[in-house]
Amino acid sequence: MRAVVFENYKTFPVLKDVEKPKPGPGEVLLKVAGAGACHSDVAVYNEFDASTPGAVPPSFVLGHENSGWVEELGEGVTGFEIGDAYLVYGPVGCGHCAACSRGQDTYCENAATNPYLGIGLGRDGGMAEYLVVPARNLVPLGDADPVAAAPLSDAALTPYHAIKLSLPNLAGGGKFALVVGLGGLGQIAVQILKALTGATVIATDMKEEAMAKAAAHGAITVPGGPDQAARIREITGGRGVDAAFDFVGAAPTIKTAAASMAIGSRLTVVGIANGLYEWSFFGTPYESTITNTYWGTIEDLHEVAAMYRAGQIVPEIERFGMEDALEAYRRLEAGELSGRAVVVPHGAQ
Amino acid sequence: MRAVVFENYKTFPVLKDVEKPKPGPGEVLLKVAGAGACHSDVAVYNEFDASTPGAVPPSFVLGHENSGWVEELGEGVTGFEIGDAYLVYGPVGCGHCAACSRGQDTYCENAATNPYLGIGLGRDGGMAEYLVVPARNLVPLGDADPVAAAPLSDAALTPYHAIKLSLPNLAGGGKFALVVGLGGLGQIAVQILKALTGATVIATDMKEEAMAKAAAHGAITVPGGPDQAARIREITGGRGVDAAFDFVGAAPTIKTAAASMAIGSRLTVVGIANGLYEWSFFGTPYESTITNTYWGTIEDLHEVAAMYRAGQIVPEIERFGMEDALEAYRRLEAGELSGRAVVVPHGAQ
Amino acid sequence: MRAVVFENYKTFPVLKDVEKPKPGPGEVLLKVAGAGACHSDVAVYNEFDASTPGAVPPSFVLGHENSGWVEELGEGVTGFEIGDAYLVYGPVGCGHCAACSRGQDTYCENAATNPYLGIGLGRDGGMAEYLVVPARNLVPLGDADPVAAAPLSDAALTPYHAIKLSLPNLAGGGKFALVVGLGGLGQIAVQILKALTGATVIATDMKEEAMAKAAAHGAITVPGGPDQAARIREITGGRGVDAAFDFVGAAPTIKTAAASMAIGSRLTVVGIANGLYEWSFFGTPYESTITNTYWGTIEDLHEVAAMYRAGQIVPEIERFGMEDALEAYRRLEAGELSGRAVVVPHGAQ
Amino acid sequence: MRAVVFENYKTFPVLKDVEKPKPGPGEVLLKVAGAGACHSDVAVYNEFDASTPGAVPPSFVLGHENSGWVEELGEGVTGFEIGDAYLVYGPVGCGHCAACSRGQDTYCENAATNPYLGIGLGRDGGMAEYLVVPARNLVPLGDADPVAAAPLSDAALTPYHAIKLSLPNLAGGGKFALVVGLGGLGQIAVQILKALTGATVIATDMKEEAMAKAAAHGAITVPGGPDQAARIREITGGRGVDAAFDFVGAAPTIKTAAASMAIGSRLTVVGIANGLYEWSFFGTPYESTITNTYWGTIEDLHEVAAMYRAGQIVPEIERFGMEDALEAYRRLEAGELSGRAVVVPHGAQ
Repeated sequence: MRAVVFENYKTFPVLKDVEKPKPGPGEVLLKVAGAGACHSDVAVYNEFDASTPGAVPPSFVLGHENSGWVEELGEGVTGFEIGDAYLVYGPVGCGHCAACSRGQDTYCENAATNPYLGIGLGRDGGMAEYLVVPARNLVPLGDADPVAAAPLSDAALTPYHAIKLSLPNLAGGGKFALVVGLGGLGQIAVQILKALTGATVIATDMKEEAMAKAAAHGAITVPGGPDQAARIREITGGRGVDAAFDFVGAAPTIKTAAASMAIGSRLTVVGIANGLYEWSFFGTPYESTITNTYWGTIEDLHEVAAMYRAGQIVPEIERFGMEDALEAYRRLEAGELSGRAVVVPHGAQ
Repeated sequence: MRAVVFENYKTFPVLKDVEKPKPGPGEVLLKVAGAGACHSDVAVYNEFDASTPGAVPPSFVLGHENSGWVEELGEGVTGFEIGDAYLVYGPVGCGHCAACSRGQDTYCENAATNPYLGIGLGRDGGMAEYLVVPARNLVPLGDADPVAAAPLSDAALTPYHAIKLSLPNLAGGGKFALVVGLGGLGQIAVQILKALTGATVIATDMKEEAMAKAAAHGAITVPGGPDQAARIREITGGRGVDAAFDFVGAAPTIKTAAASMAIGSRLTVVGIANGLYEWSFFGTPYESTITNTYWGTIEDLHEVAAMYRAGQIVPEIERFGMEDALEAYRRLEAGELSGRAVVVPHGAQ
Repeated sequence: MRAVVFENYKTFPVLKDVEKPKPGPGEVLLKVAGAGACHSDVAVYNEFDASTPGAVPPSFVLGHENSGWVEELGEGVTGFEIGDAYLVYGPVGCGHCAACSRGQDTYCENAATNPYLGIGLGRDGGMAEYLVVPARNLVPLGDADPVAAAPLSDAALTPYHAIKLSLPNLAGGGKFALVVGLGGLGQIAVQILKALTGATVIATDMKEEAMAKAAAHGAITVPGGPDQAARIREITGGRGVDAAFDFVGAAPTIKTAAASMAIGSRLTVVGIANGLYEWSFFGTPYESTITNTYWGTIEDLHEVAAMYRAGQIVPEIERFGMEDALEAYRRLEAGELSGRAVVVPHGAQ
Repeated sequence: MRAVVFENYKTFPVLKDVEKPKPGPGEVLLKVAGAGACHSDVAVYNEFDASTPGAVPPSFVLGHENSGWVEELGEGVTGFEIGDAYLVYGPVGCGHCAACSRGQDTYCENAATNPYLGIGLGRDGGMAEYLVVPARNLVPLGDADPVAAAPLSDAALTPYHAIKLSLPNLAGGGKFALVVGLGGLGQIAVQILKALTGATVIATDMKEEAMAKAAAHGAITVPGGPDQAARIREITGGRGVDAAFDFVGAAPTIKTAAASMAIGSRLTVVGIANGLYEWSFFGTPYESTITNTYWGTIEDLHEVAAMYRAGQIVPEIERFGMEDALEAYRRLEAGELSGRAVVVPHGAQ
């Protein structure tokens, strides 16, 4: 079968023929419906080397945002119908620590000794015609389009998880949420916040077009500039926002978000630009917190799928055939995509 | 001034002249903007006698759903501008127990020795031209219409409080809520649930018209009948609802709601019909709870006001002049009102 | 190997030779350290028949409270050292629904089509020299005695789970907890409540000796009798208890517990006597809840093991050799045990 | 009556005769049982000037940690018996904003326009023979010694509030808490953590004697030094602590605490040394939070009083007569106190 393979650090992936995989015990073979191309793939093949923390050694098939139709069941697997559509939870931990037991493989206590981080991250991913995954990583999609769903497994799961942990801050009337950075994840964050809370959603980005999209989803937009935090605070009646999500994570974006917070609020940095933020007692509204986050849980993905099926999350995608998969990565690197690139090896079916 | 006075148990109230009140220390005199007529007023004057638990002895001015404009400040009160519009929190507890300290006068630990339950409930209420309230019971309305706001202090606060305690059950994607009984409180419950959660809201009532209104607010309606619980469960994909609110509270409505619940759900009985429900271990989905509730907290009312000001709650009212106040109660008793009756002593201003 | 086999409904189990099992893919073979005899085993072989809801069809090896030493790893299993001691999580669900994904196999969404409920419940259990379990069901015990640990997987996990869900009700100073029924689970409940909360723990049982044990663990005991609920309430200063746990679940015990509750409290019925409780709006303190529960999650069991290793839970057991396993069940049925019977096929090692 | 008066910025207070106060409407006159001398008093009179944020302008009677016996009731106050002992909640906000409505005057939304911060902080405090307080600020002490209780209103309320917000992080078995800085508040924090949670409590301080006291209360102590965070982490089995409380708040103590945290943990900086902490995405365990806090709520103080009455908090105090009140401040400044200095104007009664 055709597959996009990451063969060496700091080397663009190749499209080549590889053997069609077989599902082992407890695994399921999927005919791939969609595989999303993600910025972190670019980091994997362009930026990391063997010494980078979090690097995943080549070679393997890329693609950690996947969906597909059940094609074949491995030994001992029951409860799936051939042809049914599923979304794939990407992280794969040891399976037997406390974190994995609650479906949070992202925080596996044995991560240091695991052979890989997940599907398409050390273990063969979905940028191929077929894909093998553990049965527990499958989330049913029912009648919903599996192609557009593929990126949800990262681009929706990550903001969903961050937002879910912030729901207590946003519970009730008169709340305010701030989304900084309106790329793929930020746009979906706006949709999730509008659907799951009654909060007024304030959104900001450097690009006018991105802000226009967020406004179309119901956000109030505030452009950058020296008085940005003051303008955000003004919208909240002076109180500040109850939850903020920074999908950039650079020093200036964290600083802006931090300057916009209310007493008792929660600021989650999702973007991995690793900017420094100077925290101090008197520089922080009382009982407001700052934290980071990484991806989500299997149960979260079940809930994301429910929102997608209910039309509460509408991912924006651009479809590429298998033969154009590398082109998808090239355009991703070049910043030429307006939606998420999804490789569709078998068409929409 | 003119006022509607409850003079004797089991006696229809009278409209009469009483002395215009003076605000004492810590109190504020309001020019009444609106006073809602509530079913519990009817219970107070029609059903209770001196021996009824919860009875509030006459005589006093009725009206526990009030709003008004600041007219005069009592001794020691600061921070209010004459003419500003406020919503009034009705319950008044001892003021110094733990429950009152958190603004939950409804559960005052000294309720047994308090002289009254609240404003319009033992202490003079808002069915009059002027009203005196403790300063802490005032919730600012800003530019929003205070007349339509009046009933929010009960008809929105009560469902809001019940829903707020259920938000953890409804947090996230793929959740379901059930509203049983679509009178004034039930209709507002639908609006609050739609605004604050992403849940699919299922609603039911005996009246087609009430269901049509709920549907217009975004609910899925299910009529009564022998298979009602089964139909509700079917909408949830078999899982049951995550939170239910029974605004009737009769044995059959509780039973229907209880039969519709999911594992880990919360059923709140709000209506006081005092129906019996036969609870048993094997008759209950695991970890689902059943509970009751009464009114809300001052902070809740601040949040209700925020929702009203944001257009997330739109109360349906019928306005009555001061001279027609008794007519409002007559129509309330006769079931001839389609919205909440609000007595407007001074017009809309 | 020797094993206690449940061969037919309504038939006492037999001790017989069966084949030593082999671990399949994803599974681990344990040399059994301890297997607890539980009242629900007696229900399985004495009370159920094929038509009983929850019945688990024979034949299989009994024992759902197990611990053991790793003896052999099935295909694909890593991260375990031969000889290390583990506690076994008993429930086994489909493995791929949302409930299983969070380690709560007890509430598996596919329970109706699963071949068994768990280890020793439809699938071979630990009343044998060797036992095969899924790797994810293993919880490490470190240096702690695995024999005394065995019953924790049910007799501690069940109260632990119920208590953990009640911790918000018991959070802070001045709280009160009630334990009704001081058998094996109730005694451990007292220990867990004393360790994890600052609550005053009130305990009750028909047997003086059981109350004396609870008192030795720090509980205040209140004997039965017509004024029991009044005496419990008096201890709380009139307010009632914040959380109660009824390990009997008969109509009178639920009624006593329900009559002892505070506003906003949580009553969890754990015992499965299936008593009826007549719930009504005015018969219930506001916002107090009543609920049931069943066993616990894998992560809970990790936390139970931590408490055991820290000496916060000290199970009381009586050891039986493999040859005396049926005698253990006989004495369990006869009520002649003072601690939990643990079958120890290989001695303490 | 005799009173300790703060007369001018940067000026040691004086002991002088002032008029015995009268309770206004809604207020209560207390005969002072005890008044604690607090480090923040020293900041008030030694460090602040008119331009300092948070400065409270002279002159007023010092003392914000107070207890006393009811001596006289102001107009409209009921529900108190003359002679009964009460603890005093110090903060006084506007009384009618959302924060004040929930008894959290510390975060009053109108703080900028309030005439004072609280009792002994702009408004006359308890370093005197008599004291006037709002009735809602009183928390009953029952039969417990009011003198030793006085400092609880700050030295226990502050750590209690911080710990209460961290209880979800410490809920369950196998948790770890860290206390940095074992002065008065830190010692009480250790007691509260031991009483309310099952966590292993790790404590550290520069002084051997302070660590010995914490150890006597059940903490594991870890001295300072370059490998301190590593040693703390080792005690937790590598995982890190679930909640930490830094009662110093200097850059090195925050850094040590931050380096000791687990995934999903909560670090609360309580001490106001205002040290800078450099937060970054990859420098922080996932979903761990850092926050600050200030004092507590009225309801918290009710719960603190319950813990004190139950013997779960045992404050260490040194008693001073009214005539020695200034000596108490001198010894506080000189660091010569081992417990909290409590001025006792009327003896223990």
